[in-house]
Amino acid sequence: MIRKRAILTVLAMVFALGFISLAKAETADPFPSWNDGKAKQSIINFVTTVTNQGSPDFVPVGERIATFDNDGTLWVEQPMYSQLLFAIDRIKVLAPEHPEWKTKEPFVSLLKGDVEGALAGGMKSVGEIVMATHAGMTTDEFETIVTDWVATAKHPVTKRPYTEMVYQPMLELLAYLRANDFKTFIVSGGGIEFMRPWTESVYGIPPEQVVGSSIKTQFEIRDGHAVLVRMPELNFVDDKEGKPVGINLHIGRRPIAAFGNSDGDLQMLQYATDGTGARFGLIVHHTDAEREWAYDRKSSVGHLDKALDAATENGWTVVDMKRDWAIIYPFQKK
Amino acid sequence: MIRKRAILTVLAMVFALGFISLAKAETADPFPSWNDGKAKQSIINFVTTVTNQGSPDFVPVGERIATFDNDGTLWVEQPMYSQLLFAIDRIKVLAPEHPEWKTKEPFVSLLKGDVEGALAGGMKSVGEIVMATHAGMTTDEFETIVTDWVATAKHPVTKRPYTEMVYQPMLELLAYLRANDFKTFIVSGGGIEFMRPWTESVYGIPPEQVVGSSIKTQFEIRDGHAVLVRMPELNFVDDKEGKPVGINLHIGRRPIAAFGNSDGDLQMLQYATDGTGARFGLIVHHTDAEREWAYDRKSSVGHLDKALDAATENGWTVVDMKRDWAIIYPFQKK
Repeated sequence: MIRKRAILTVLAMVFALGFISLAKAETADPFPSWNDGKAKQSIINFVTTVTNQGSPDFVPVGERIATFDNDGTLWVEQPMYSQLLFAIDRIKVLAPEHPEWKTKEPFVSLLKGDVEGALAGGMKSVGEIVMATHAGMTTDEFETIVTDWVATAKHPVTKRPYTEMVYQPMLELLAYLRANDFKTFIVSGGGIEFMRPWTESVYGIPPEQVVGSSIKTQFEIRDGHAVLVRMPELNFVDDKEGKPVGINLHIGRRPIAAFGNSDGDLQMLQYATDGTGARFGLIVHHTDAEREWAYDRKSSVGHLDKALDAATENGWTVVDMKRDWAIIYPFQKK
Repeated sequence: MIRKRAILTVLAMVFALGFISLAKAETADPFPSWNDGKAKQSIINFVTTVTNQGSPDFVPVGERIATFDNDGTLWVEQPMYSQLLFAIDRIKVLAPEHPEWKTKEPFVSLLKGDVEGALAGGMKSVGEIVMATHAGMTTDEFETIVTDWVATAKHPVTKRPYTEMVYQPMLELLAYLRANDFKTFIVSGGGIEFMRPWTESVYGIPPEQVVGSSIKTQFEIRDGHAVLVRMPELNFVDDKEGKPVGINLHIGRRPIAAFGNSDGDLQMLQYATDGTGARFGLIVHHTDAEREWAYDRKSSVGHLDKALDAATENGWTVVDMKRDWAIIYPFQKK
């Protein structure tokens, strides 16, 4: 009898605990890494409005499309874009197979560690670096290359894996939107196949919800197997005016919310916020030189000038990283 | 109004089917419109295997990707592709604004009702018809044009709305796959923006899960609004070798199952069935001249020759429409 009572007591406790955790689920702050303020409140207000069936601005589940830039919006883009660092690492790995690179720009500079010199040739140099490192293999092979790189590469300043250099407040925002039946997409100037191997585990965004820049691919039967070969030819640049084009091609609906951090996101925000009903635009403003980086109108990486002015004109939310974010990275969680 | 109601009725039927299959998932036959036989059994065997956690061929939910051709696989493509009939209808509507068409091919033949004569110029004529009817407006405007056409146009033989000329057994197959946590995609040679306005209500496939051929679009601020303008320039042909390319670009994973009916689907089936683990390929063979149409190796529309041979070589399921399908269209349900 005593044992039975003990068991019942334990059961009651378990139930009570269950109840408490359920009750907490209703009230818990979905944004523990955001400081209270206008930015956080504007997100909650928007989502509350479009998910409220009594509201004239109610949006059916299927139309709750939110698009996110990646570099500088979901993860770090300083001191330089991660994909450029990936390309540089690949050049080093591939150099033994390319003796001609010892005397050929932009490779000779890159191999000496002189990134600035390598990029002095502008878009032509960037193109040569991209094609030398991103083309010539099958899509399956490229996926393995990216997966291996992401698993081992370290950020040049913090020495942490790139997948830890993501913004915890933005992870909370992604989760909050999905909990409210939004479908979250990445719409990035970065390579679509550079992102897809890790976006699901890091952001919870599956490959089919990633839009990005791409090179052409070609179907082949190779050694009896059906493969796609990556060709050294540009297919699509998913940046600036290209972002609404990419959104329309891949998603086929106008997003009701868009999130970016640079002038490369201006047209995406214009496109998303110009539809009927409630709309939401947000710019992440990098203002925290101590915990992250501070840059905007004068930066070449993550250049934010016109889109910052447009945010004021259009009533988009501007996140002041220093003021609005309690922590920056997941590893800073207590 | 009656036509609208007819579409709504079909919609209600599709929804009802979804509900019934959910409620009776354990016991009810998910394929009431399929006759018992190898074809039906092969589908059930495949899905049972990949969803069985104890099976070495178990596939996690996110990787359960199935791709479907549209014309001739999900809806009728005889006596000619629906999108061509749409284009012809548009030429008639637009003719008063284009007096020059009275003396210019392929328009003069089309306006006289001589489709064969209009298409005598081959791909050049097709291109001119497509660009005259599919370009020059915003994507929002084109969506309205397609929506209005689909709501009113009738199939030339049966005089029924095109959205009723879909294959009931394939609707059951789509529902069955989704009930087993597959994500279903359309991968069609048809225009991506010609399909998206109605695929969700007719097939339960949302716009972001439709892959197709496309023309280029351009971002503009027009009268103060952010719009995409459809340009008279080809962007992508999602047919034959293009299908695996389109799948990779839009979905970013290799499907584990693919469904087609013509040589235009051969490469998609090769690509989908060549991965590791259990794979499934299916060809709808149009063998029923009484209830639908009978055509394969000698037909220009839905030409099925190499893919039929490949089905035998690769062990893909071939649906004999006459033998395997108890009914063809939703309106034949008892």
